[in-house]
Amino acid sequence: MANDWATFGADLHLELRGTRLRAGLMDALREAVRSGRLEAGTRLPSSRSLAADLGMARNTVADAYAELVAEGWLTARQGSGTRVARRTAPRPAAPSAPVLPPPGTGRGRPAAPAHNLRSGTPDLASFPRTEWLKAYRRALTDAPNEAFGYGDPRGRPELRAALAEYLARARGVHARPERIVICAGFVHGLTLIGQVLRARGVRDVAVESYGLGLHDDLLRGAGLGTPALAFDERGTRTEELAALDGCGAVLMTAAHQYPLGGALPPDRRAAVVDWARASGGLVLEDDYDGEFRYDRQPVGALQGLDPERVVYFGTASKSLAPGLRLAWMVLPAGLAEEVAAAKGAVDWSSSAPDQLAFAAFLRSGAYDRHVRAMRLRYRRRRDQLVAAVAAHSPETRVSGIAAGLHAVLALPPGTEQATLRAAAWRGLAVQGVNQFRRPTVPATLDGLVVGYATPPDSGWQSALQALCGVLP
Amino acid sequence: MANDWATFGADLHLELRGTRLRAGLMDALREAVRSGRLEAGTRLPSSRSLAADLGMARNTVADAYAELVAEGWLTARQGSGTRVARRTAPRPAAPSAPVLPPPGTGRGRPAAPAHNLRSGTPDLASFPRTEWLKAYRRALTDAPNEAFGYGDPRGRPELRAALAEYLARARGVHARPERIVICAGFVHGLTLIGQVLRARGVRDVAVESYGLGLHDDLLRGAGLGTPALAFDERGTRTEELAALDGCGAVLMTAAHQYPLGGALPPDRRAAVVDWARASGGLVLEDDYDGEFRYDRQPVGALQGLDPERVVYFGTASKSLAPGLRLAWMVLPAGLAEEVAAAKGAVDWSSSAPDQLAFAAFLRSGAYDRHVRAMRLRYRRRRDQLVAAVAAHSPETRVSGIAAGLHAVLALPPGTEQATLRAAAWRGLAVQGVNQFRRPTVPATLDGLVVGYATPPDSGWQSALQALCGVLP
Repeated sequence: MANDWATFGADLHLELRGTRLRAGLMDALREAVRSGRLEAGTRLPSSRSLAADLGMARNTVADAYAELVAEGWLTARQGSGTRVARRTAPRPAAPSAPVLPPPGTGRGRPAAPAHNLRSGTPDLASFPRTEWLKAYRRALTDAPNEAFGYGDPRGRPELRAALAEYLARARGVHARPERIVICAGFVHGLTLIGQVLRARGVRDVAVESYGLGLHDDLLRGAGLGTPALAFDERGTRTEELAALDGCGAVLMTAAHQYPLGGALPPDRRAAVVDWARASGGLVLEDDYDGEFRYDRQPVGALQGLDPERVVYFGTASKSLAPGLRLAWMVLPAGLAEEVAAAKGAVDWSSSAPDQLAFAAFLRSGAYDRHVRAMRLRYRRRRDQLVAAVAAHSPETRVSGIAAGLHAVLALPPGTEQATLRAAAWRGLAVQGVNQFRRPTVPATLDGLVVGYATPPDSGWQSALQALCGVLP
Repeated sequence: MANDWATFGADLHLELRGTRLRAGLMDALREAVRSGRLEAGTRLPSSRSLAADLGMARNTVADAYAELVAEGWLTARQGSGTRVARRTAPRPAAPSAPVLPPPGTGRGRPAAPAHNLRSGTPDLASFPRTEWLKAYRRALTDAPNEAFGYGDPRGRPELRAALAEYLARARGVHARPERIVICAGFVHGLTLIGQVLRARGVRDVAVESYGLGLHDDLLRGAGLGTPALAFDERGTRTEELAALDGCGAVLMTAAHQYPLGGALPPDRRAAVVDWARASGGLVLEDDYDGEFRYDRQPVGALQGLDPERVVYFGTASKSLAPGLRLAWMVLPAGLAEEVAAAKGAVDWSSSAPDQLAFAAFLRSGAYDRHVRAMRLRYRRRRDQLVAAVAAHSPETRVSGIAAGLHAVLALPPGTEQATLRAAAWRGLAVQGVNQFRRPTVPATLDGLVVGYATPPDSGWQSALQALCGVLP
């Protein structure tokens, strides 16, 4: 993992680990607060002076400060500078529950922000407890005894059969149960695929210009390089794949680019599949929120175009709840066996009763009903977001709204950092598009990624107000 | 929670907690030794006089002394009485840690045999569906909304608190919730520990002469060497650890050697802890079936001897069901954070509702009731096995029967392979001890490892007959 420690001096001594400077600085600052080396109330150097000391861009430091304010580690007030938050220190003993750690956040458990519009988490208050419990009861009652033992590494056959039916119907995925492997979330699935690709001799897996840093980290942790594909107003330039020498796969959010929000246009969908066919490469399709599309029929999965060249990843983390740790892969012939073998001789990871409950939930139609209800709910939130932004900041363009649980609000060039700082001052946790930009990609966009599914109903209007308050 | 503390006087001041006198006395004595109130070498009152002081039956005290001798806390010698064992005090800081394996299945999924006496799986037909469902319902009803989100990588606080209480009470484990990390089974935990140890610069993790090859594989997969410790009729020769250069940890099944079945004798329990203290190494204690002991009270966990030098691994795979994928580690200070970090920024692996259900199951007493019922059931099977072997093959020695879910049947030298072939012809799946022998260990034993928990009731008698048919 990230063992390339470097030491930076000056009056604030921090150990930076990892390759990404901002994330590394944030980790080091969190660690300094957590360990007590930076005491509550301590005033930090200005971002300008720390940046000079560390030889970083000032914005990198300012970003890190703003993020840590949003996470509750630091406070920032006009005239008083940035300080370590006064809080009962994050005791390692703290048995209290975490904030919301959407994929990609650092470690630590700071106080929750007043308003949370970070993307990556669905509305947890809407988890269908009664319906899920009903499915769980049915599953537990009907389960054969062997279901309680060590199971098939691909996962329960009941769930794979139910998913094959559902994915074909709802996502246009060409799925046979024996090609499906259940995993404990996308992160688990990507880790497995990374191992298998590396073992096959793949050198690089291309990624999109914008995405979750964690996914890069996982691939690099498997020993793979992660060159970034260029991006333009029509999305990821998949036609450039052919020029990437040594690239054996590409990780894509084709149906709904994360986080920028567009659907890959048809010619570029064709281009990525053509590349895979011509080169023998694989497309890793991260269909994280394919169920939620508002203005027209869902864009079908890329996988349907060529099931032998696309690895399809789906998850219950957005459609139901991340806490269930349920996800699935649909794999080309041959690869299914390799991924199952990478999981182990038996299923060491996923609870069999949970898998059976999810199978029952799918088969009974409860999943369809839940997705339908949530689609209406999220669409209403999206419409309220669009209306509020139009009323308070008519110049602000809202994009990526046809689908998913988040939108992107474009900001005037060069204002993203200041806007994030202003948000942090208001106790609003929200992310900037540049937090998702791969390190090698030049900065050309400014904007906010607004996760409108995250707040509970009781906090939604105030979160919206806080958001509008920081827009131009 | 065992909070009903009572104070008993006399020349030995002890605080007794819990309801069961013997267990309470043992806890109090362990605590007095651990805290230093009873110094090494101190001679304890005779069991007769302590019993009189405490108003207990003498046997209760004598039993507690004997157990603590077995666990390595005390020593007893003719003429010198019972004394606190001489050993350096537990240092609070922990440098490196090892991994554990979940004794269980081997690899591969062949067609189901007619009779299955492979070890590693509990009686799946006895899974307490009704009680588990009750706990799941309570958990799902009471869960806060945030429980459905991305959670703390250490696992749910409710479960860690319930486990801390249970492990202290039932296994003599010194457990604080913040030192517990939930994982998806022993294999997951061992994998995490392997990564952390390797990152700490550990080169080798010693293993026992006999054990699961999978556990070796996991450690070697993390880049660690796995030298095997010698074994004799008294068990693993832990006194030889000091001679292993570069060994940073040792993986042990101290309470019930897997698969040979003995409990590590007191002097060797002391030796492994002494080695860990002197060398800064770690003991990885795989307590896979500690709940099941038949002829006397369970041998307490090694971890209680020095919580800063022992990583304790427990699992629900033998006590409840492997299909739940629930296990836990109790870690020394410092290591808990490293293991949590190796798990990720959030809990990517274990279902939150399952963890909450298990917490409710523990708290309601359902777990204790289930373990008690299963202990009776397995003991009955064990007795039937012993009786059947005695009747059909009086020369065959049965060992490892004081605890656990399997026994070892000694075979005449050189006959193991032929016996396994004969078993296969009869459709009987059973393992030979040499299938568990580390590659570098010379073959000196012949025997069968018989998992008597595995068959359903309906298949038990015929499996027993098939087994007797292949014995000399």
